Amino acid sequence: MCSCGVIECDAAVARDPEHIVKRAKVRSKRDLSHYRPASEGGGVRMVDVSAKPVTARMARARGFVRIGRVALSAIRRRVVPKGDPLEIARIAGIAAAKRTSELIPLCHPLPLTHVDVTTRLRHNGIEIEAQASTSAQTGVEMEALAAVTVAALTVYDMTKALDRSMEITGIYLVDKTGGQRGAYRRASRASSARRPAR
Amino acid sequence: MCSCGVIECDAAVARDPEHIVKRAKVRSKRDLSHYRPASEGGGVRMVDVSAKPVTARMARARGFVRIGRVALSAIRRRVVPKGDPLEIARIAGIAAAKRTSELIPLCHPLPLTHVDVTTRLRHNGIEIEAQASTSAQTGVEMEALAAVTVAALTVYDMTKALDRSMEITGIYLVDKTGGQRGAYRRASRASSARRPAR
Amino acid sequence: MCSCGVIECDAAVARDPEHIVKRAKVRSKRDLSHYRPASEGGGVRMVDVSAKPVTARMARARGFVRIGRVALSAIRRRVVPKGDPLEIARIAGIAAAKRTSELIPLCHPLPLTHVDVTTRLRHNGIEIEAQASTSAQTGVEMEALAAVTVAALTVYDMTKALDRSMEITGIYLVDKTGGQRGAYRRASRASSARRPAR
Amino acid sequence: MCSCGVIECDAAVARDPEHIVKRAKVRSKRDLSHYRPASEGGGVRMVDVSAKPVTARMARARGFVRIGRVALSAIRRRVVPKGDPLEIARIAGIAAAKRTSELIPLCHPLPLTHVDVTTRLRHNGIEIEAQASTSAQTGVEMEALAAVTVAALTVYDMTKALDRSMEITGIYLVDKTGGQRGAYRRASRASSARRPAR
Amino acid sequence: MCSCGVIECDAAVARDPEHIVKRAKVRSKRDLSHYRPASEGGGVRMVDVSAKPVTARMARARGFVRIGRVALSAIRRRVVPKGDPLEIARIAGIAAAKRTSELIPLCHPLPLTHVDVTTRLRHNGIEIEAQASTSAQTGVEMEALAAVTVAALTVYDMTKALDRSMEITGIYLVDKTGGQRGAYRRASRASSARRPAR
Amino acid sequence: MCSCGVIECDAAVARDPEHIVKRAKVRSKRDLSHYRPASEGGGVRMVDVSAKPVTARMARARGFVRIGRVALSAIRRRVVPKGDPLEIARIAGIAAAKRTSELIPLCHPLPLTHVDVTTRLRHNGIEIEAQASTSAQTGVEMEALAAVTVAALTVYDMTKALDRSMEITGIYLVDKTGGQRGAYRRASRASSARRPAR
Repeated sequence: MCSCGVIECDAAVARDPEHIVKRAKVRSKRDLSHYRPASEGGGVRMVDVSAKPVTARMARARGFVRIGRVALSAIRRRVVPKGDPLEIARIAGIAAAKRTSELIPLCHPLPLTHVDVTTRLRHNGIEIEAQASTSAQTGVEMEALAAVTVAALTVYDMTKALDRSMEITGIYLVDKTGGQRGAYRRASRASSARRPAR
Repeated sequence: MCSCGVIECDAAVARDPEHIVKRAKVRSKRDLSHYRPASEGGGVRMVDVSAKPVTARMARARGFVRIGRVALSAIRRRVVPKGDPLEIARIAGIAAAKRTSELIPLCHPLPLTHVDVTTRLRHNGIEIEAQASTSAQTGVEMEALAAVTVAALTVYDMTKALDRSMEITGIYLVDKTGGQRGAYRRASRASSARRPAR
Repeated sequence: MCSCGVIECDAAVARDPEHIVKRAKVRSKRDLSHYRPASEGGGVRMVDVSAKPVTARMARARGFVRIGRVALSAIRRRVVPKGDPLEIARIAGIAAAKRTSELIPLCHPLPLTHVDVTTRLRHNGIEIEAQASTSAQTGVEMEALAAVTVAALTVYDMTKALDRSMEITGIYLVDKTGGQRGAYRRASRASSARRPAR
Repeated sequence: MCSCGVIECDAAVARDPEHIVKRAKVRSKRDLSHYRPASEGGGVRMVDVSAKPVTARMARARGFVRIGRVALSAIRRRVVPKGDPLEIARIAGIAAAKRTSELIPLCHPLPLTHVDVTTRLRHNGIEIEAQASTSAQTGVEMEALAAVTVAALTVYDMTKALDRSMEITGIYLVDKTGGQRGAYRRASRASSARRPAR
Repeated sequence: MCSCGVIECDAAVARDPEHIVKRAKVRSKRDLSHYRPASEGGGVRMVDVSAKPVTARMARARGFVRIGRVALSAIRRRVVPKGDPLEIARIAGIAAAKRTSELIPLCHPLPLTHVDVTTRLRHNGIEIEAQASTSAQTGVEMEALAAVTVAALTVYDMTKALDRSMEITGIYLVDKTGGQRGAYRRASRASSARRPAR
Repeated sequence: MCSCGVIECDAAVARDPEHIVKRAKVRSKRDLSHYRPASEGGGVRMVDVSAKPVTARMARARGFVRIGRVALSAIRRRVVPKGDPLEIARIAGIAAAKRTSELIPLCHPLPLTHVDVTTRLRHNGIEIEAQASTSAQTGVEMEALAAVTVAALTVYDMTKALDRSMEITGIYLVDKTGGQRGAYRRASRASSARRPAR
């Protein structure tokens, strides 16, 4: 199935963004039950996944919190005033993944079967990776990204008394499987955000 | 008051991270009611702000979603299948700021008096800025950062059918006022994340 | 299956409210595991849908916010101080549908596959329509109604600086499909609420 | 203070909607930090109440659920399959008032000091009234309205097996006190919704 | 399937806690994708239920609120200032069961098909029993326990003006069915908590 | 102020439960705006704290999870499959305290200034203690109790693969300060639940 939002679309070219955009334009004109002129507040729409099959889905996302030397050393020596940020960030990330559909207005609620978040100390910050799984009619990218993001915010919150110039950066989708558009794997160029900046 | 987490601390050197770390070590030994050896799960702690005065607080944060050429052009021409991401991202960011203390485990619940989120189209993505205000015993950095972050996730969600390689990046605190440690303003070096990457 | 709350009931007369009421009385006496005398706080119960099959469900609901002349003109000219209520009401309605089981005590949590809310300017107010879909063991009327209702509250909140005498009215179920009791379509008499009142 | 959204506005004519609309137009041009052209998703904004004084606030709202003869008789005889709707609706309404700022995107979170909901059987349905109180920088209309609305949805949910043509209607603000614009009391014409329709 | 957390484990000895502990140790060494050394905050993990079959699940839990003579008599005579605690505790318990995965960090979100809570006046307090059902890849013990627990807290809240020495006690799993480890039924020794203490 | 629920009551005998019960009866008759006959669903009510002064409040609560020998040894050796329960239980307890007013229907929302949860391994289980603080018009007993309770549920969830006969027990208020009824300290008889049972 094509991701252009028209659920019966079976275009072979479904992975082509230009196609998707074209379909979106056709759709606004054709799909009367959905059509809302600008003057009536027409606008955003949830994708209708009612007709999609339930398949096993997995997505992985990554992010990074860049942290200054003093604060990072305090994390390493476990003397951060609020406590060790690494484990609590993992827990906050897992909890956030379960609430993704409350945070992102057009996300579908999904019965997650697994969420895992890892946090790793690097020489210039903390690397975060999250993985989410489900069997559902739509994917779990947003769940993996929400987990990474809230884990990063939690690292920030735990450490902010020591460093207020931290930067959360390099949040992206690593890969995903399941769904009719097939698997996705991000091209492995190094993110600019990953390079040491201090 | 010093941010070392010991509420009666009146150190003049409160802005010095080394001091804060030193106090944290002293504290673990001295503060018996809080002491929890590792073998008993001792660890993270919420900062006790009970004795702090209520003051007007404001914080601003910023972030960026780097987006590919085709998807960005679709946003500009308003033909993204799920609808225009700019306004819904603002709304999602405001709503998220109000729920910060549910997302970040050790954040205090705060009665926000204002949240504003702006989203701006740039040549290589969308820039997000959030501002949060309150009168409270602790600051609103996390609220401003949560608003930016969830707004960014919402941009991602709205646009992901067109570009799965987007990157959320450059999330940091711009400035804050109020509180006893005084105002903070981030040194204005350009974030590495802001530079065009494609 | 009959909606009298006794899951094994296969009465052909299931659509007859009198039958349902009669069964409810029989049930209180027979179903000992559930029986709770008044003196012990006996009372409300969630319907047990464990034995029902999963089927595709859809429901549509409608509502109206009656708005005064000056405020309505401000909405039309897009000069409402808090901003245009039409789109934010749609988004709030979609978000609320996803949280229906948190708002309504005995509602089952459902994995919604689609929610859509439309808002239309009329000569005396704003008309709201919501549609919810899922594949589940119970229906989505409450989700559609919650979407309409919270969208209406959001219109009120956006516009209340201009008109405090607005009235939310005419909220009802339009139709529903799926489930064992078959489809429902409301008889098309005009709602009294829809008639202009000013 | 005027409710035109410009916090420093001290217009004596603050109760005049035309003034408010005029100010909104001036504001869009003047208030650069807030200005967002349509092309950048500019739009809705939370009112900034940071500079408003904390005052005691109260608001009362009302609503009605119109119910058919058979279902109403079942409620009266306490043989509704899911149980008596009157008390659970009150509880759901109180709980909803506390979550208003989660449901309505631009509402401020408020520390409610009291919420009360009454439900009364009438000859053609159930009348609902809610009262909310707080000491805060902004009013509690939305809290009272949210309580009424969710109580009404709960009545619907409890009774829907007996009557799917119920209508939720006549939801409005009865009166409010506190705040700088002074008290409000709705003119006492009978709501059209309150008249018997069956 | 074994509950040792290694999803492909098919040990016949799955009910033996010693086996589960042994597997956990093996796992930490073997399962590289999951391994996180202490220095990196390694720790808690959600059980991956992705590969488990969906089966019908049920669990029942019980608890008790021990209440003093005067307060208990007020409950019996229905003159508790905040109102009768028995029914509102049931409703709060049902609502809490639906939110279990928000409260317990590593719980999976589950689409509950039924929750029932009973509250019974005893000579020395109130007995609470909850039952939860679903069709899912993991069990509903935590949902039943959360329902009991929040119902007990609600009894406490309703009655605390009359007795601040109440004790919530004897919360345990009664039985559960469904899942691959088979049914569980608690050995029927009387809980020490159930014995009258006043 | 007396806790009988009549906010203007200044009875010197306010700590006497018999007085409170008597006032509750008087109140139902006198307080017409609140009176709801049984036939109209009259019942539970939130205490109106609008007229109470804001004072510093603190409450401490305690609870216990009784755990079998094998599981307890696994916790001690840190080989529980889901990970170490002691720290995650603390975090879950803190998070739950912040959401008390969402769980307990008639609780007031409170801006907590501090929550602390400790978990301690004992020879027959895990002891949990929570402390909550705020400056508000009502107390924080329920917040402290909610923290203990959800921490206990989390211990159960983490350990249930090893022991399904665990029992959560001995949850009570230890002491509280602030408010007009003065401080409370529980009489120090050993709780029956604290005695070893295996």
